[in-house]
This record gives sequence, structure tokens and C-alpha cells, in this order.
Amino acid sequence: MKVFDKAVIIGTGLIGGSLGKALKDRRMVSCIYGLSRNRRNAVTAKKTGAIDQIGESLDVVKEADLVVLATPVDTILGIAAKIAKKVKKGCVVIDVGSTKEEIVNEAGRLIPNFVGCHPLSGSEKRGIANIRKDIFKGAVCIITPAPGTKKDALSRVSALWKGLGSSVVRLSPPEHDRVVAFTSHMPHAVAFALISSVPDRFLSLGAGGLKDSTRISASDAGLWASIFLSNRANILSSLSVFQDKLAFLKLALRKKDGKLLKKFLSRASVKRGKLDDHSY
Amino acid sequence: MKVFDKAVIIGTGLIGGSLGKALKDRRMVSCIYGLSRNRRNAVTAKKTGAIDQIGESLDVVKEADLVVLATPVDTILGIAAKIAKKVKKGCVVIDVGSTKEEIVNEAGRLIPNFVGCHPLSGSEKRGIANIRKDIFKGAVCIITPAPGTKKDALSRVSALWKGLGSSVVRLSPPEHDRVVAFTSHMPHAVAFALISSVPDRFLSLGAGGLKDSTRISASDAGLWASIFLSNRANILSSLSVFQDKLAFLKLALRKKDGKLLKKFLSRASVKRGKLDDHSY
Repeated sequence: MKVFDKAVIIGTGLIGGSLGKALKDRRMVSCIYGLSRNRRNAVTAKKTGAIDQIGESLDVVKEADLVVLATPVDTILGIAAKIAKKVKKGCVVIDVGSTKEEIVNEAGRLIPNFVGCHPLSGSEKRGIANIRKDIFKGAVCIITPAPGTKKDALSRVSALWKGLGSSVVRLSPPEHDRVVAFTSHMPHAVAFALISSVPDRFLSLGAGGLKDSTRISASDAGLWASIFLSNRANILSSLSVFQDKLAFLKLALRKKDGKLLKKFLSRASVKRGKLDDHSY
Repeated sequence: MKVFDKAVIIGTGLIGGSLGKALKDRRMVSCIYGLSRNRRNAVTAKKTGAIDQIGESLDVVKEADLVVLATPVDTILGIAAKIAKKVKKGCVVIDVGSTKEEIVNEAGRLIPNFVGCHPLSGSEKRGIANIRKDIFKGAVCIITPAPGTKKDALSRVSALWKGLGSSVVRLSPPEHDRVVAFTSHMPHAVAFALISSVPDRFLSLGAGGLKDSTRISASDAGLWASIFLSNRANILSSLSVFQDKLAFLKLALRKKDGKLLKKFLSRASVKRGKLDDHSY
């Protein structure tokens, strides 16, 4: 089902490339132009069928019905500013960044039909080499429209994600940033600190538990530094909540209070069980 | 290859049951008796082929060449005390608990040929329903002999784990407890605290990152409370190291020091990469 005619994807990495492949696979757009800071990525994206054509400059957005900003969080607003005057009336512009308040506030002011999107389909792997057309299937996509976004643009963006098999959840940009601070950014910060605290000489004895709990710390440092800075206040406050919980666990352990300890672990274990029940 | 004749496994849960199944599969013992606090578990263990016979009382160890203590950490010493007088001369007794110093010190005093073992094959799943004969294949098993353990007993225990496809690493009991505090117990404590700090209403938006990083918090609360208490001092000090790393990350974020932040994340990411290089 075609939702947009001509699409331009700026940033052909894991999310941008996978989105291109998925849109083409489901024939949801008629043609995709792709741009990458690194031309070799764009060439690979074309070869692997993630895009139809390589865009030679940002001017390619002039004809677009849909523009996808799929570059790192700290570069999205710069590109939004550059394309704001180029896009035609009615063009829908979305981003797929991991934070929304800064981006949607500013890009929504520059571009009439801007819809912030955050497909919860990320991975510690990045780049065109890891793209897969099915990463959106069964995943949640949070959409955060700007105040001025037209209803029609919003429903087409929603149709796009649903067409790729995602569940769409609508939140305000500040709500989004608060939620993902807890569900994604805090776990990443904790995982980075966790692997940092394991002495090198013990790494060879790390088994499944250590591997699982630190998997996301293999993520790209530059990408995550910019996500952390972009959602700083929410992340700092979610980490304070985490530190309080850990302090409680330590206190129970220090006091050798087995009953309190078991109660704390038991609640956590039950809560973790609920996470698997959400079968998006 | 037969390593022991008659074996008794006390505790037919995930590790005990899987060990029975693996030993029978490779014909490494001639006959296995199994005991469980809960008779139904022992019946299931027999039905699924993890044991040959159900032991009716601890007296069954009298004829054994190998006894495996595979019950929760806080029950191992009680059982060791009960069987110490019953086992025949030359019988090798091992445990498979997650901590070693307390257990090996005391059980090694009571039983001449005691070898502490810790197969790093655990899981957040437990019980006879989850046993798999291949959980030891490609895994590490840490062995921690007591001071009085005979060489022959040690080499037969080592042969047993190697026969199941494990790499055997020998550590002293205190070394073991210090290492696993960092590689297993600290990550578990952090995962329990992490899931505890996510507001319930946000759980439905938890994606792969949150799931991976908290998977081990679905582990059994009672088992883990006893592991934590048994390795209390090491865990408290590993958690202090972790808290320092997290405080550093927070400071960089609070100061908006993108360069410092990226450096910290980058080192962590490289270190996490090394974890996958260890292909046991």
C-alpha cells in the first residue's frame, strides 16, 4: 500500500537503511533517494536495495513527499534547518532520533509538517552492514507530533509505521523523553558503567549474565554521548532513582537482612516477568 | 568415557538435572541416583532421563563414587554435614554452587575429597523443566579444590567437566568469589535494581535494550538472596567500584562535557567488544 510517493532518507545507517529496505519491500513509497555523509555508505545502501537512487545534494528534498532524518541526534536540527526552505508545501518530514523534545520543538517551528518518530528498533549494532527490513515488525514506534502538525500528515506517518508492522504510541515530546530516559537511556548508562567496572583480567570469566546485562554497552560511543546530552536532565533524574534502589539493596546486604533482600529481589523478578508479557 | 561408577545428585534443578542428563548422554557414569526436597521433581527428573533412580534417603550416598551437591547455596553445608559420615573412603564430593569460600572451607574440613565447582552455565530460568544436557558445552567451569583434596580426585573432577565440553579453570576459593562478584553477582545486583527503578506504567515501552540488560533479574529471588549473603563483602566492594564509575559518567553529563563522556563510553564499548572475543 503506497503511503507516500517520492521519499528521501538522509542517513543510511541501521535505522535509515532498514527503513528504506522495509518501505521498498512493502511498496509503501514509489521511489527512495538516499544521502549519507559518507558516499560509500550510500553506494552500499543502493547496492543492498535500501534506496533506489543516491541523492547528490540536499536539493533532492525539493521533490520529496516524505523526508526521513535518520542521522545521529546531534546533527538532526542542523539538517532540518538546511532543508526547511527547500521542501515543498505538503511534504512530511520525520526524524527517527532517540530524543524528541529538543528536536520536535525546533524542527516543528521550521517545518510545517514535522512528526518526531522513535522506532524502538535500535541495536548495539549500527551502520548499513547491519540493516534488516524486519526490525520494525512487532516493535513499538513512538510518534510525537509538533503542535502545528496537520492531522493528515500525522495519520499518514502513523499508517507508514503500522504498515511496517509496528504498534504506534503517541506521546508528547516531553513525555517521550521522560519515558525513554527510564526504559532505554538509563539502562544504557548503567551498562556502560557496569562493563567499565569489571577488571580486564576477569573478562575471560564473564558468562551469559554479564554478556546480556552489558550487551548495549557495545553501542556506538559518539551516538550515545549525543543522546545522553540531549536528554540530560531526565537521564540524571532516572539515574538517581536507580541509585536509590541500589543503595537500598546494598543496605539490606550490609545488614545481612535476608528477608528484606529476598523481598526486594522477588518484587524485581516479578516486575521483570511483566516485561516479557508485552508482546509488541 | 566412564569417569565415575555410581553417582548421586542431590538437587535435581536446572544445574543438577542438566548435569545428570549430560553425564548419562556421554556415558560418563554407570548409574545416577537423584534426590530432591520435592519428590515430584525427582519423579520428573527420572521421567526426563536426568537420573536413573530416585534416592529414597541420604543413605543412598553410602555406595556412591561421586556425590553432586546441586541445591541452593545456603543449603549445601547442611547437606555436606549430613553425608560426611556416610560416604565411603575415596568418594568424591562436589558442589555446583555460585560461591565457594564458605562452602569449600567447611565442606573440605568435613569431607576428604571435596572439590568446589562452579559451572558458569546458570540461567534466569530454574528447575527441572528447563534442563538441557548441552549447557556445559563451550562453558567455563571453575574448580576450587579444598586444601586436603587428593590429586586423583581433582583430576577426575576436571576430566568430568572437560568430558562435558567445558573449559576448566582452577582458582582458590577466595579468588573465585572475588572474580564472580564482578562477573556475575554485581551484574545481578545491578539488574535487580535497574528493573526496580523503571516505573510500572513505562514497562510496555521497554524494548530490547531494557530486556537484555535486566534479563537476569528474572532469576529466583531466594536463590539469589542466599548467593548475595554468601559473598557479601566481595559484592559490596564490587558495587562500590560500579557506583564510582556511574558517578563519573553522571559528572561528565552534569558538566555537559561531551568529550569526556564520549571517551568514557568509547572505552566501555571497546571493553564490551572483548567480552565476545572469549569464545568458550
